Amino acid sequence: MHRVDLNCDMGESFGVYRIGNDEEILNYITSASIACGFHAGDPSKMRRTVHMALEKGVSIGAHPGFPDLIGFGRRNMAITPEEAYDLIVYQVGALYAFVKAAGGKMQHVKPHGALYNMAAKDQALSEAIAKAVYDIDPTLVLFGLAGSELIKAGERVGLKTANEVFADRTYQHDGSLTSRRGDPNALINDEQVAIQQVIRMVKEGKVRSQQGVDVNIQADTVCIHGDGPHALTFAKKIREKLAESEIVVQSIR
Amino acid sequence: MHRVDLNCDMGESFGVYRIGNDEEILNYITSASIACGFHAGDPSKMRRTVHMALEKGVSIGAHPGFPDLIGFGRRNMAITPEEAYDLIVYQVGALYAFVKAAGGKMQHVKPHGALYNMAAKDQALSEAIAKAVYDIDPTLVLFGLAGSELIKAGERVGLKTANEVFADRTYQHDGSLTSRRGDPNALINDEQVAIQQVIRMVKEGKVRSQQGVDVNIQADTVCIHGDGPHALTFAKKIREKLAESEIVVQSIR
Amino acid sequence: MHRVDLNCDMGESFGVYRIGNDEEILNYITSASIACGFHAGDPSKMRRTVHMALEKGVSIGAHPGFPDLIGFGRRNMAITPEEAYDLIVYQVGALYAFVKAAGGKMQHVKPHGALYNMAAKDQALSEAIAKAVYDIDPTLVLFGLAGSELIKAGERVGLKTANEVFADRTYQHDGSLTSRRGDPNALINDEQVAIQQVIRMVKEGKVRSQQGVDVNIQADTVCIHGDGPHALTFAKKIREKLAESEIVVQSIR
Amino acid sequence: MHRVDLNCDMGESFGVYRIGNDEEILNYITSASIACGFHAGDPSKMRRTVHMALEKGVSIGAHPGFPDLIGFGRRNMAITPEEAYDLIVYQVGALYAFVKAAGGKMQHVKPHGALYNMAAKDQALSEAIAKAVYDIDPTLVLFGLAGSELIKAGERVGLKTANEVFADRTYQHDGSLTSRRGDPNALINDEQVAIQQVIRMVKEGKVRSQQGVDVNIQADTVCIHGDGPHALTFAKKIREKLAESEIVVQSIR
Repeated sequence: MHRVDLNCDMGESFGVYRIGNDEEILNYITSASIACGFHAGDPSKMRRTVHMALEKGVSIGAHPGFPDLIGFGRRNMAITPEEAYDLIVYQVGALYAFVKAAGGKMQHVKPHGALYNMAAKDQALSEAIAKAVYDIDPTLVLFGLAGSELIKAGERVGLKTANEVFADRTYQHDGSLTSRRGDPNALINDEQVAIQQVIRMVKEGKVRSQQGVDVNIQADTVCIHGDGPHALTFAKKIREKLAESEIVVQSIR
Repeated sequence: MHRVDLNCDMGESFGVYRIGNDEEILNYITSASIACGFHAGDPSKMRRTVHMALEKGVSIGAHPGFPDLIGFGRRNMAITPEEAYDLIVYQVGALYAFVKAAGGKMQHVKPHGALYNMAAKDQALSEAIAKAVYDIDPTLVLFGLAGSELIKAGERVGLKTANEVFADRTYQHDGSLTSRRGDPNALINDEQVAIQQVIRMVKEGKVRSQQGVDVNIQADTVCIHGDGPHALTFAKKIREKLAESEIVVQSIR
Repeated sequence: MHRVDLNCDMGESFGVYRIGNDEEILNYITSASIACGFHAGDPSKMRRTVHMALEKGVSIGAHPGFPDLIGFGRRNMAITPEEAYDLIVYQVGALYAFVKAAGGKMQHVKPHGALYNMAAKDQALSEAIAKAVYDIDPTLVLFGLAGSELIKAGERVGLKTANEVFADRTYQHDGSLTSRRGDPNALINDEQVAIQQVIRMVKEGKVRSQQGVDVNIQADTVCIHGDGPHALTFAKKIREKLAESEIVVQSIR
Repeated sequence: MHRVDLNCDMGESFGVYRIGNDEEILNYITSASIACGFHAGDPSKMRRTVHMALEKGVSIGAHPGFPDLIGFGRRNMAITPEEAYDLIVYQVGALYAFVKAAGGKMQHVKPHGALYNMAAKDQALSEAIAKAVYDIDPTLVLFGLAGSELIKAGERVGLKTANEVFADRTYQHDGSLTSRRGDPNALINDEQVAIQQVIRMVKEGKVRSQQGVDVNIQADTVCIHGDGPHALTFAKKIREKLAESEIVVQSIR
């Protein structure tokens, strides 16, 4: 029997600003990665999102990012591994307290945006992040790009990890994501194609790369996007299709 | 036998900016209230200050404040009790993680600056703060102005509390501090007078108010300032004088 | 012949976050008050909003606020008049440069949110704001609540002022706005009533207060809201009705 | 006759935090580059520093940086040229208003830290910065690393430029600065050597590189550091030595 987790970034509203359809998307996912106030989110949004996830039985993770609200954490910043450690402890700690105060238990940590992408390739950065997560709570699960440096660092440190795959992104022959800068084939716009890619990754552990060859990939959790006009219908559809394909959708823990 | 705790605000440096003599002051105090990144402090300073306090055997508390770095958290902000709850959970949670990651255990929470002063008089604000602290960890001790609304709220919520007194501030007949705005007698500049005031508060539970009458006051912890040219010598002197007066200086827990 | 200006707050998006229908609303107003990055807005939004306003021939003003992005500048902050002066010079200067770089000329300054409301009643704060505006450019027009301390301060300093009135707010017998906290009659939900109130203020210089008596009021500019589901249709409708009433809608300058 | 400008970064204090000896250093320099609130500085510090510089007859420039107060603008950020344009207009505009409000005239713009270093090598980034400065005021002088892309971009855009040299840094054979990361010879600690390097750069237009060969370099302005224990004595000494060497020290304009 095959299993997979469906996760979505959440709690990325800020102050009066609204983003995403958190409340509705929560009906279809099994893990919520909640922003921690640096790239998005604020203390009140964190509390509310934690409560919503607990009510709907969705597992909760922290989604820490760069201190760059204007850039939504999507711009690379040249931080040291030590600074990365500190950023992670701070942000994960803040969300951890909201989860604990609400009577829940945090499941995972998934870095956001540019921090996620940089960590996928940078061993020192990944080790700092993994060490920070372990030091906060060694039972936390570290989410990272499937097969990336972050996953390897998590395993070395002694954390349970979850290899993350993307439904709507294409892959390169080395298992990396096709860059969205300049390559028109980076995104998969056809929902059917996207869902079939996920089902194959889960069932066969393979994905067809842009170079036309199959690449081995481990799919523990699938990233669903929470904003955009089609986010909700896509979440619903992928959930249904996975069920039809006899894949059990459940959270990592 | 009389006992009292000596606490000092710590970790209020930020980025390249330095404030205070944390490392030296830690030799004379028993509790450190560490800034949490909103009015002062940053993730790296938090980690380092936590490590220094643990090495020196000083109990650790969180020192959350308003999100007002330019104003150092000293300017009143009209936040709702709900916003106060969220600010506290966020900041205390962040520091809690650094303490846990370093193998320690947080002892207390003491609001900073304008938040401390507003909470001293505002019941709804105090209750939100006390509730937040309790929800994070009901074994935390809530530090507040002696006899203030914050202490009362902490007791109602079920927290252990610590009544804080000031060595270098004068008191009013209702037990409140003399306002520093406009009143030249608000500060006690004579170190001997300041220390004698503390000793009397600890031993007799009384302080002579500006109106010339004694006021009952409970002194569980004394606030020492960490910056300024005389901070270090004063910390050393008050510690000696308390010992000479057979007052045991030890942390709340 | 009667004249009035229609102004709307603009450029209040931030980073990836969108608020308002700036591009459409600009078709119906004569003055745009553009956020300056403290309570809302960011450098890129400021540039784009300035360009849009210039293209549509709408006069441009700065809309400076408190440094409180989480609270959207709506929470009172206890700043000194000197701090207010500095906040205004900084924010207005930043927008001024975008206007100049785009080949335009700034028309006015209108404080935002809590700063606007505090200035309406606080003489020292208002004088600091008015002085800042004058020092930047004495030809700028100061927008403030009709008849408020801010208008008086602007006149004393030597600035041209614009008395601002609200279509959808009710008034008290002293000419102040009915507080939105607690009073269900603070807002006028009937668009016809709102528009009639504006027309009477412009033509007769009077408004019927909540106490049932007429109050004298000078209406130089009417504040239109830019967000909310009905913002656009209301803007269009009030513009039409003012024209039907033979009121010329044109910018202050 | 040889001439050179002495410039120093100024106004980098923030809130309660103090950095530098601005008031004393101003006695020895001819141009002050004042922080604009993103990497350092705040509105009140900007106003005060502008006033001090005007009183002492020191020419004023803006010193804009990355929005990274924790990292003091020293960490590379992957911003687009368009974002750079907007950051420059915003920050320079803010300082411009303080200078104008104080009755002065801004002389120059010098990017700070990582933005300065990135611009030295990146043509697109440099052009965006130069364009922003030109659009604000085409009479402004653009300060950049001697011979760098930023100087070239300034010239292409039509700005007057000032080639900046460093007294206490060593140079590479291509005219670039030796990187402080990893190379122990990056800094010149001997004050005599540092001053002789400057005198030679000004008089002969040459500097001996780390590779042992002379490199052509144009020295229009020398960067003096404002913090550190020896900043003040060094500023005084270099000013004296330049005078003894019959080099006129005067601002660019």
